[in-house]
Amino acid sequence: MNTQKPVIAVTMGDPAGIGPEICVDALLDRSIYEICNPFIIGSRSMLEIASKILNKEIQVNLIDDPWGANCELGVINVYEPGKFDTSALLFGQVQRLAGQMAYDWIKASIELGLKGKVDGVATCPINKQAIRLAGIKEAGHTEIFQELTRSPYALTMFSCHQLRVFFLSRHMSLLDACRYVTKENTLEMLRLVDKELKQAGFLNPLIAVAALNPHGSDDGLFGNEEKDALVPAVEAAQLLGINAIGPIPADSVFHIGKSGAYDAILSLYHDQGHIATKTLDFERTVTLTLGLPFIRGSVDHGTAFDIAGQGKASAVSLVEAIKVVAEYARKKSSE
Amino acid sequence: MNTQKPVIAVTMGDPAGIGPEICVDALLDRSIYEICNPFIIGSRSMLEIASKILNKEIQVNLIDDPWGANCELGVINVYEPGKFDTSALLFGQVQRLAGQMAYDWIKASIELGLKGKVDGVATCPINKQAIRLAGIKEAGHTEIFQELTRSPYALTMFSCHQLRVFFLSRHMSLLDACRYVTKENTLEMLRLVDKELKQAGFLNPLIAVAALNPHGSDDGLFGNEEKDALVPAVEAAQLLGINAIGPIPADSVFHIGKSGAYDAILSLYHDQGHIATKTLDFERTVTLTLGLPFIRGSVDHGTAFDIAGQGKASAVSLVEAIKVVAEYARKKSSE
Repeated sequence: MNTQKPVIAVTMGDPAGIGPEICVDALLDRSIYEICNPFIIGSRSMLEIASKILNKEIQVNLIDDPWGANCELGVINVYEPGKFDTSALLFGQVQRLAGQMAYDWIKASIELGLKGKVDGVATCPINKQAIRLAGIKEAGHTEIFQELTRSPYALTMFSCHQLRVFFLSRHMSLLDACRYVTKENTLEMLRLVDKELKQAGFLNPLIAVAALNPHGSDDGLFGNEEKDALVPAVEAAQLLGINAIGPIPADSVFHIGKSGAYDAILSLYHDQGHIATKTLDFERTVTLTLGLPFIRGSVDHGTAFDIAGQGKASAVSLVEAIKVVAEYARKKSSE
Repeated sequence: MNTQKPVIAVTMGDPAGIGPEICVDALLDRSIYEICNPFIIGSRSMLEIASKILNKEIQVNLIDDPWGANCELGVINVYEPGKFDTSALLFGQVQRLAGQMAYDWIKASIELGLKGKVDGVATCPINKQAIRLAGIKEAGHTEIFQELTRSPYALTMFSCHQLRVFFLSRHMSLLDACRYVTKENTLEMLRLVDKELKQAGFLNPLIAVAALNPHGSDDGLFGNEEKDALVPAVEAAQLLGINAIGPIPADSVFHIGKSGAYDAILSLYHDQGHIATKTLDFERTVTLTLGLPFIRGSVDHGTAFDIAGQGKASAVSLVEAIKVVAEYARKKSSE
């Protein structure tokens, strides 16, 4: 293996979903081998089943240590912690066993990450219900990664073409999100975003803050959050040496940003950044988690139980997630 | 002239802005002659100045009636109401005279529209300050068109690629826009959207309602507007025979819609629809005004005083606006 390239673990996700199929398809994509040494954490037998469904010739190679793996096109290296009998698994069903497997694979990726054996993790989708049936209390990937790496925070960033989008708030009502736009919250988030971008290799990153109100409130005609919270937060951030600008009207900032004008955009609520990236390119919107000891990225689709096991799933998102994770893993290791 | 094609008036907008230049450039675009008979309402001398700035050979032909006009590439027909001395005009400046001219040209387009002499109007940008200096009280194009055509309402629709986006609310703070999401307001807007789309030639148009909260509230986890206002509004609309669906999470509805899945999307606040279309393609986002006796469309940029008279302006948006206006004018006249 080429040790210049980052080692990227791909967790299979819920094995009853499209995870096994997209793992096979993605690991047969030549372009990812140019930038990383990828391997799967999951089930060998599910990979073999998926390759038959897809009618693809592959050799599945069981590995004990990603550092000893021979990474070449046509050979899929798989790390399989625990011994599960997959013969009872049914595609497209919520199953306790599948939830347990998905969780154990995530845990294994974290253990390898903490030991420095992998530089980044790209995750396939899990089913929250199956995870819960397996007795796991964390709600999703981000919570599991934050908890098991004992990280004080986990910061979500969307990568889509040249856009990098952070979120002041995410899973709350839009009314609550409006109320969450305070000087203190915005400044604190700008500090975290600045810190994490620097950790990821950006020098003095330029962070554009989106406005909350239409036309950035048009000088107070439509709302006060720009004047009362956002302008003061940006000014305070600048005094701390953070290269922040804005607020910039939300219908301009993503358009301007998509040609690479900023290193990042701070979106003020969930849908603001989601609408921008997902309308631009749904399949190439990759969710990264920063703030962990290693980089973690995820596809932005679900388990797709309705088409699992049918050879219909597209691996475009997973290929993109692997590439983005590899890119950030390289930036971090080249510090 | 080919009388099968709709007659489209292009108002020059503020003559001190980029209007004259983009008028010349757009009217030299061969593709628009294939779908309409275009002419300018504005100043002949400003067109000649603009053609010199752009170093383009054109013949400017003064017309009294758009129906008598010979529409061919290289000949720009101009309808010039009133006699203004343009020699005192300065590019890039807010001027009372320029505001008066811009307003008079809009008024002329409306008079021709009401007489049935034009099928649609594409407007170049005006400067609100100049308009105010000229003593006009209406704030912008939409208000002028609604007032002078005595229309009970004017409905804004964005056209961008295959997306058609309407707005439940526009120029209010995001907090107020959240509060504006009621069953009554949504149902009333769905009725108007349905009516106007049918007027524009759509049979039983499929209208997708965007959700307000992230994940469409995830069954009430993040906000109640979906359950309390949007679901009841969609159900009530369906009982009235309106082909409405939703609410659909906002980070999916525009992505799904961009491949033509719906006839229209009802966006719940200004930025929701603006972010989607302008991130997708800023220059090809055309604003249409429905509810008038004729169709009106507009570029979505401003007067660009900073580059006016310098030959730097792009006519992409105006060409797109003319095309979209011609398309809707044809739909309406083929009823």
